[in-house]
Amino acid sequence: MSRNLPVNAGRIAGDIEALAAITEPGHPWTRRAFSPLFLEGRAYIEARMKAAELETRIDATGNLIGRRTGRKPWLGTIMVGSHSETVPDGGRFDGIAGVISALEVARALSDQAIELDHDLEIVDFLAEEVSIFGVSCIGSRGMTGQLPEAWLSRISDGRDLAEGIAEVGGEPGVLAQQKRPDLAGFLELHIEQGPVLEAEREDIGIVTAIAGITRIEITVEGRADHAGTTPMDRRADALVAAAQLVLDIRNAAAELAKTPGHFAATVGEFRIEPNAANVVPSKVVLLIDGRAEIRADMEAFCRWLDGHVEKLATAYGVTIRTPNRVSDNMPTPGDAGLLSTLEAACERVGAKHRRMASGAGHDTAWIAKVAPAAMIFVPCREGRSHSGDEWAENDDIALGAAVLFEAVREMDKDLTREKADGTHTG
Amino acid sequence: MSRNLPVNAGRIAGDIEALAAITEPGHPWTRRAFSPLFLEGRAYIEARMKAAELETRIDATGNLIGRRTGRKPWLGTIMVGSHSETVPDGGRFDGIAGVISALEVARALSDQAIELDHDLEIVDFLAEEVSIFGVSCIGSRGMTGQLPEAWLSRISDGRDLAEGIAEVGGEPGVLAQQKRPDLAGFLELHIEQGPVLEAEREDIGIVTAIAGITRIEITVEGRADHAGTTPMDRRADALVAAAQLVLDIRNAAAELAKTPGHFAATVGEFRIEPNAANVVPSKVVLLIDGRAEIRADMEAFCRWLDGHVEKLATAYGVTIRTPNRVSDNMPTPGDAGLLSTLEAACERVGAKHRRMASGAGHDTAWIAKVAPAAMIFVPCREGRSHSGDEWAENDDIALGAAVLFEAVREMDKDLTREKADGTHTG
Repeated sequence: MSRNLPVNAGRIAGDIEALAAITEPGHPWTRRAFSPLFLEGRAYIEARMKAAELETRIDATGNLIGRRTGRKPWLGTIMVGSHSETVPDGGRFDGIAGVISALEVARALSDQAIELDHDLEIVDFLAEEVSIFGVSCIGSRGMTGQLPEAWLSRISDGRDLAEGIAEVGGEPGVLAQQKRPDLAGFLELHIEQGPVLEAEREDIGIVTAIAGITRIEITVEGRADHAGTTPMDRRADALVAAAQLVLDIRNAAAELAKTPGHFAATVGEFRIEPNAANVVPSKVVLLIDGRAEIRADMEAFCRWLDGHVEKLATAYGVTIRTPNRVSDNMPTPGDAGLLSTLEAACERVGAKHRRMASGAGHDTAWIAKVAPAAMIFVPCREGRSHSGDEWAENDDIALGAAVLFEAVREMDKDLTREKADGTHTG
Repeated sequence: MSRNLPVNAGRIAGDIEALAAITEPGHPWTRRAFSPLFLEGRAYIEARMKAAELETRIDATGNLIGRRTGRKPWLGTIMVGSHSETVPDGGRFDGIAGVISALEVARALSDQAIELDHDLEIVDFLAEEVSIFGVSCIGSRGMTGQLPEAWLSRISDGRDLAEGIAEVGGEPGVLAQQKRPDLAGFLELHIEQGPVLEAEREDIGIVTAIAGITRIEITVEGRADHAGTTPMDRRADALVAAAQLVLDIRNAAAELAKTPGHFAATVGEFRIEPNAANVVPSKVVLLIDGRAEIRADMEAFCRWLDGHVEKLATAYGVTIRTPNRVSDNMPTPGDAGLLSTLEAACERVGAKHRRMASGAGHDTAWIAKVAPAAMIFVPCREGRSHSGDEWAENDDIALGAAVLFEAVREMDKDLTREKADGTHTG
């Protein structure tokens, strides 16, 4: 890349490399939240924050924050960041790219002796991925008063989440009071984790909305019969009925995906019982992961599903309990003003950009509930993520960091103006 | 039942009850081969054999045998029996009914002071079910020189099969030499483990053939993608392709089942990877259990399957390796002479009977390789087997035992005549 960027691409590459090296041997790239490796990774990030003259702290929920004081701190805080922990066996860039890009914004500002009016905070959120405690986005929920108190009692490895947060330096006792009314705006850079930017040769995705995630559990109950002796026409085979259901779900989702707004539905968990070679399957439990940029799409899908399973149950002589919505989150639109700011920043650094939804969940979705927030995507190879193959080109990340840099500068001006006007983009 | 049978139904019920009580608490009816409970069950059976004045022994493969000496032992041995061990959480009658009915034949002969020309042996075969060593029909294979020697090294719970056989009283060192050239004929009574006799209100199934069992493993490989971010039309979802395959297998099997001869195919084992809510399934490994009374049916099924998976792989953008025949056994027809003998015995005791195939495998299939052998089925409730619900009416079992009694008497005469003629029904 020959672009003359306002950020240092080599410095980004060096930090991402250094973090990649902190992994479970034989399981690249594993640095799960609450593990000793995670703390090792954080110690590296904290050292780099200090080297950039950021004032570091761990907040009550265990988020690592590096602060750069502005000239008019009463204007509030502009926050930029992502998460440094990984899923098991994956996560070379997922999260890390956003933390290091954010750090690079602070360094680039200092390199260029730019003072902001706002305080700038670089954040490494705790446990964005589904953690050993079975829940995700712990840090961004906790920072904004959205962490269900009951979650603190969730147990893993002989300790509860409250103890886990304390272990990483948080203060679970005061967590419930944590709020961030000072947040003036939030930005996150993340790899796309999908194939669109690469396929369409775009540099940056401006994320219009983070899709709502709806998880639906379905149990199909048939009858366990001897596979050798039970005639084919006297069976209630739960697997056969569930197989039809998997195909129908795929087809229904493919239809909804053709209409405007991102939509996907995936059967990712699927277990049969008794799972024995010579027994007709008696039970299948499957979990649908549905994602919708437009809430009405998800509602239409759930309505279709509720009616469809009844028909299937009759047709296949099995029992299918009413689909159980295990969890159901609304789509989160990006802040309209910040989306324009990000587009302008892309233009300034010469990045090709397009608007797109995020099918994946992100910390941004939780911050967006309390402050103007938006995020950008950078391309990743073949859309691969949550796997050892995950790869993003450093030039693409650096270009994204440059977009963040320009956007933060613009936000600092815009938000200062707004404060003076008494308006707010949220 | 008001029939005046040559066997004592109450004695059969008492023994089956007593064996049912020897079960893992909370897991009725569990008495797996090689377990302490199994040995406890066998001690009961041995005591009952001794009470019936049978001479007991454990043969080299660990089969428990009770012998009643005939007047002309040089004519050879008529053997009757089944197996006393169970699958986990099932097996109230599966096997047991056949062992106790065989024992009752010996008792009834003695009650009526009937001496046979042939020696009569009542057998409890070792480990007919798939055992902790992962293989089945250990006793009947071993008795007839058909136990693969490599199996003796199979490990479970820190010991190998040879040690397991030694623990139950066998002699693995001389097992390879074990053959039974003296076997003149073999009969087994078993519950049907299917719904046909009950549905058609027949008392006895005369088993024309034990279906061949063919196990086929298929691996479907797609691509693990993020379930939220990967557009529906850019996926290689292994579960979706495998779901189509499950439906197609069911339909192909249902078609073959409509032609003469029992045929069934079941996908009983089915595992997906990574089996995570938010990941498009990358891999499915499934196991087909195929049963065919007529070998040509199985060959047609396998030919269809080999061609079909190629088409499916193309249609769904996945890779499906050539189906792997993990095991492949031929159908085993019952001895024609014994089938007639059994039908005549049914007529004698007034039992309604029909010819039918066995979809399940049985020890009889192994004995049939070296001697004339046949089996009968008695009805069981709703065809349920290998489950806690397994049930057979004692009157039905007693009627079956009476058929065995009459058949054994007839075999004793027939086989004596044949020996005199120098002919053989095998």
